[in-house]
Amino acid sequence: MPTIKGPDDVKALPAAALPLLAQEIRDEIIEVTSVNGGHVGPNLGVVELCLGLHRVFSTPTDQFVFDVAHQGYVHKLLTGRTGEFFRGLRKTGGASGFLNREESEHDSFGAGHAGTALSAALGMATARDLRGTDEHVVAVCGDAAFTCGVTLEALNNVVESTKRLVVILNDNEWSIAKNVGAISHYLNRLSTNPTYNKIHHDLERFFTSLPGGNDMHRVYMKWKRETKDFFMESSLFEKFGLRYLGPVDGHDMDELVKNLEFARDSDTPILLHVVTKKGKGLAAAIRSPEKFHGASPYDPKTGESRGGKGGAPNYQDVFGQALTRFAKADKKIVGITGAMPAGTGLTHLAEGCPGQFFDVGIAEEHAVLFAAGLATKGIRPVCAIYSTFLQRGYDQIIHDVALQNLPVTFCMDRAGLSANDGPTHHGLFDISYLRCVPGVTVMQPKDEDELVDMLHTSLQLDGPGFIRYPRGAGEGVTIKDEPVALQVGKAEVLRDGTNLIIWALGPMVVEAQKLADRIAAEEGLSVGVVNARFAKPLDAELLLEQAGKVPLIVTMEDHVVTGGFGSAVLETLQDADLRTSVERIGWPDNFVEHGSDVATLRAAHGLSPDAIHQRVMSRWRRIASIPVEADA
Amino acid sequence: MPTIKGPDDVKALPAAALPLLAQEIRDEIIEVTSVNGGHVGPNLGVVELCLGLHRVFSTPTDQFVFDVAHQGYVHKLLTGRTGEFFRGLRKTGGASGFLNREESEHDSFGAGHAGTALSAALGMATARDLRGTDEHVVAVCGDAAFTCGVTLEALNNVVESTKRLVVILNDNEWSIAKNVGAISHYLNRLSTNPTYNKIHHDLERFFTSLPGGNDMHRVYMKWKRETKDFFMESSLFEKFGLRYLGPVDGHDMDELVKNLEFARDSDTPILLHVVTKKGKGLAAAIRSPEKFHGASPYDPKTGESRGGKGGAPNYQDVFGQALTRFAKADKKIVGITGAMPAGTGLTHLAEGCPGQFFDVGIAEEHAVLFAAGLATKGIRPVCAIYSTFLQRGYDQIIHDVALQNLPVTFCMDRAGLSANDGPTHHGLFDISYLRCVPGVTVMQPKDEDELVDMLHTSLQLDGPGFIRYPRGAGEGVTIKDEPVALQVGKAEVLRDGTNLIIWALGPMVVEAQKLADRIAAEEGLSVGVVNARFAKPLDAELLLEQAGKVPLIVTMEDHVVTGGFGSAVLETLQDADLRTSVERIGWPDNFVEHGSDVATLRAAHGLSPDAIHQRVMSRWRRIASIPVEADA
Repeated sequence: MPTIKGPDDVKALPAAALPLLAQEIRDEIIEVTSVNGGHVGPNLGVVELCLGLHRVFSTPTDQFVFDVAHQGYVHKLLTGRTGEFFRGLRKTGGASGFLNREESEHDSFGAGHAGTALSAALGMATARDLRGTDEHVVAVCGDAAFTCGVTLEALNNVVESTKRLVVILNDNEWSIAKNVGAISHYLNRLSTNPTYNKIHHDLERFFTSLPGGNDMHRVYMKWKRETKDFFMESSLFEKFGLRYLGPVDGHDMDELVKNLEFARDSDTPILLHVVTKKGKGLAAAIRSPEKFHGASPYDPKTGESRGGKGGAPNYQDVFGQALTRFAKADKKIVGITGAMPAGTGLTHLAEGCPGQFFDVGIAEEHAVLFAAGLATKGIRPVCAIYSTFLQRGYDQIIHDVALQNLPVTFCMDRAGLSANDGPTHHGLFDISYLRCVPGVTVMQPKDEDELVDMLHTSLQLDGPGFIRYPRGAGEGVTIKDEPVALQVGKAEVLRDGTNLIIWALGPMVVEAQKLADRIAAEEGLSVGVVNARFAKPLDAELLLEQAGKVPLIVTMEDHVVTGGFGSAVLETLQDADLRTSVERIGWPDNFVEHGSDVATLRAAHGLSPDAIHQRVMSRWRRIASIPVEADA
Repeated sequence: MPTIKGPDDVKALPAAALPLLAQEIRDEIIEVTSVNGGHVGPNLGVVELCLGLHRVFSTPTDQFVFDVAHQGYVHKLLTGRTGEFFRGLRKTGGASGFLNREESEHDSFGAGHAGTALSAALGMATARDLRGTDEHVVAVCGDAAFTCGVTLEALNNVVESTKRLVVILNDNEWSIAKNVGAISHYLNRLSTNPTYNKIHHDLERFFTSLPGGNDMHRVYMKWKRETKDFFMESSLFEKFGLRYLGPVDGHDMDELVKNLEFARDSDTPILLHVVTKKGKGLAAAIRSPEKFHGASPYDPKTGESRGGKGGAPNYQDVFGQALTRFAKADKKIVGITGAMPAGTGLTHLAEGCPGQFFDVGIAEEHAVLFAAGLATKGIRPVCAIYSTFLQRGYDQIIHDVALQNLPVTFCMDRAGLSANDGPTHHGLFDISYLRCVPGVTVMQPKDEDELVDMLHTSLQLDGPGFIRYPRGAGEGVTIKDEPVALQVGKAEVLRDGTNLIIWALGPMVVEAQKLADRIAAEEGLSVGVVNARFAKPLDAELLLEQAGKVPLIVTMEDHVVTGGFGSAVLETLQDADLRTSVERIGWPDNFVEHGSDVATLRAAHGLSPDAIHQRVMSRWRRIASIPVEADA
């Protein structure tokens, strides 16, 4: 490892030295992820594959596009991102957990969401063809990427776009959970039958060996001529015009290099099917592939998670348990996930009510539409999709769910920051992109007990309901035995105030309470706090009543300020001719990087408790100093 | 026709009467669409198919889900929507041009965007299975639907979701333009080789007839046992677990009914491949399938378009011609469409610079990502996608283009209303869903000359640029010989005002001018008009300067007011502590139905010139009457 400063050093190594290097890479990944957490399993599985890629191709001239890019650690280590920088993986100032164009010239395309590599690589290959250069473009896709619509759209376009593209199908039979769907079964048949290709070739040899006058030979030749769809294109990928190679053992360095070289030198798009073992080299990761897909810090010997025991339950578990309880009582309630049963908490439902649980693969568009179809027939579907991934189903939300006013509930975990993951995983846009859609209800609970109330409430709506909540632990409150149906569009006054009133949403309610305490104590002002509950419909009645009494409303949301909850407040006030000042606290208008934790990132973007306090007081003083003359 | 009041009457007819009914249906469709415009070609192609469906299945108990649903006219005529209601097709108060759950109980799922039927039908079939009822669910998908990611996602889920689903592949080799991609080629091979299935069966018979000891028989049996992927699953759809039937002549009533009955009675998901002729029965539509896909009024004899000659050029043509001019001068500029070359104006580019033109099929996600890939290598891609369809690429806009700050230009035609098409086609949400994305530039030209300037400007940006413009004719202004690069984020003052100032975007600028004239003339007020140009970044400097001088700013946009351009104005003012009143004029927070024309729909939603005038003056009077005390 210490001798590897970049891809040239990988190429220069004698082949005999590669197993040792592979072991050193695995050791480093385990050492770092056991402390920092991270995508252990996927990276341990691609060590040999990445070594092979860097032996056969030459980045940055050649380009690798890694799908999802959470399996990029090995590539990082081989392209100079070692030592302290790699030790800081997923922390502030350290390496990103994904590939990132800004981090290295060897990262040709960043990612974080699945399914994008084939399309992007096709764009790059086409650009190369247009410009007349001759570098290689390699897309490295997991098998789960082929459950994504966008990958399949790209697959349909390969032959018309370029003649030179290498697609690596990194087949470990897992996305984040065990893979689902017809393509997954198909790949499984391909990769578990080593005789597949042999028989394929035997049959072809048999037919071509038949004398020309033989009936079957004639039938065969006619078929081949007319349909080009028999032996030649018997594999799924060949129907899409790619030449299929494989399956190849993804841990056999010689086989890998031989096949990669063949693919590199081909003048037709190639799909190389590589079978890898997720978590290879770490016994615990092989035993529990889902846990070690993206793991929190762990003991590398036992696989036990480190720290974090006790404390408040996670929102995802509260959600999953509540949904399971509701689903047991009402068979019409079902849950849908896009390959995220554990992350969303739907594993509880899968265990408790397996017949009411649906995992559709990484297919958010289908998840939303499937829910819409279910809802037309009286089923009450709950789509559990992270805020950032729901962007994939945006058109279906508008065109299929909202326009038809179908009662689908969307539970958006990871609304707010996923600190260690970074900008591809933060859920900071959903209020803005949902608020403009007519007829939807958008809510966020102040704690995990209110989440259960909101789920209960949404399951009784006549139209679409969206519930957003943050990653990780709740507030540690007690969850009531029986949920309460909330009145839609009604906020909760937590304390009255005569100087200024804070309207807060979700986890900002707790922050607002602290801020109110502090302002009251330090400045002697009377500060009200409202738990807004609904970003849409907003509680206009309460807001207008309060805004008529105090000169300053402060809004607090865990979301971008552009078009968000605070803007809903502005719109409501202006539409009522009220010119109350509003200080909107939320994420500024730029992408938020990854970092060690939420508090660090909030501070870096002007959202520390001190900074917020300062902004509010500064606004208060400005208002107080220019009271009435401004209107003259 | 007059005897057909509903599906029961279709079933009661003797088979011999069907050809006459088919002819009457075609006559009615031609008569109505030749006057109202509409989707002539797709509907003429499915007359026999829809008759067959209603002979074999029974709606509303059974459910048909038509993909895109622009081919639903025949179904409408067979389910009681005849006479005046059908004569009013696509007009205010008349039948919708698409299916619509509110229009009839026979419309189980509305649509307008492509590719949704299979997912929705899968949801319905699953709901049926959950509820234990036994009705049939039939998805009717065009071949182009299989270029859509969401259809392919659904295809991957069929076998895991249900055992009973009938999928009709209505194969006319067209989406809106001639179909593209590997699946299209594949279907073409299937449907143009009538011997395909025969040979398939001959070969299978041959192998099973070989004596059991024969080597090839053993190889065959082993293959079959191990892979289930030889003869049994030689078709693409069989790899996805559907039984493939066809191809069937979609105009042969007997064959259709026989196959539909077989499909209905099967206990496995079936894909029935029906080959239809788009435009059958209208010579002009057969000659020009793209023109007659969705046609404006035409002479049924000659096929000539009626009226509409002369006048200002359409935005789409101005865009297409300008892009072609730019692309000829700079080989790095390319255009990308999702199956909409004519509608977007990219036919100009396809003709002028065919090597720089890409049609990726109805695959907006891929279109955006493909553009992102191209942009990483110095190509300047222009994605021409209607505003409403760009919702499909929303995640790619955020995650791939904006986050990586890639210089992709998006040209969003049909921003605003598509009056005759209705809510599935109106483009009323794009400012809201784009404005929250960091780093993007969102602009709208006041006329077609400024569109060219904006395209020129966007092609020089370092990051993503979005240009929205309305359907149809421009303002009739002269287009400059050489475009001007606009200063990003700078508005244009068209006239000064000391009482109130109107900030208008796009086609609202002309309306603002008229409104200003009227208020000046009737009320004696001094009214300024600003052509905002940029919804993001907003010209904050100019706005704040003006807002410090006048008590009322009026915003006008062809977009929903929730989170739109007017909200950007509110945010900018509040962030600067300015409490100027703002009257926001735009579409209210509900879906807008279809109607005869834009003016009718604007009037129906409180946006007639009179209504706007009244709102502005009413606000002005309120402000004038309660000047300073409000703050006390």
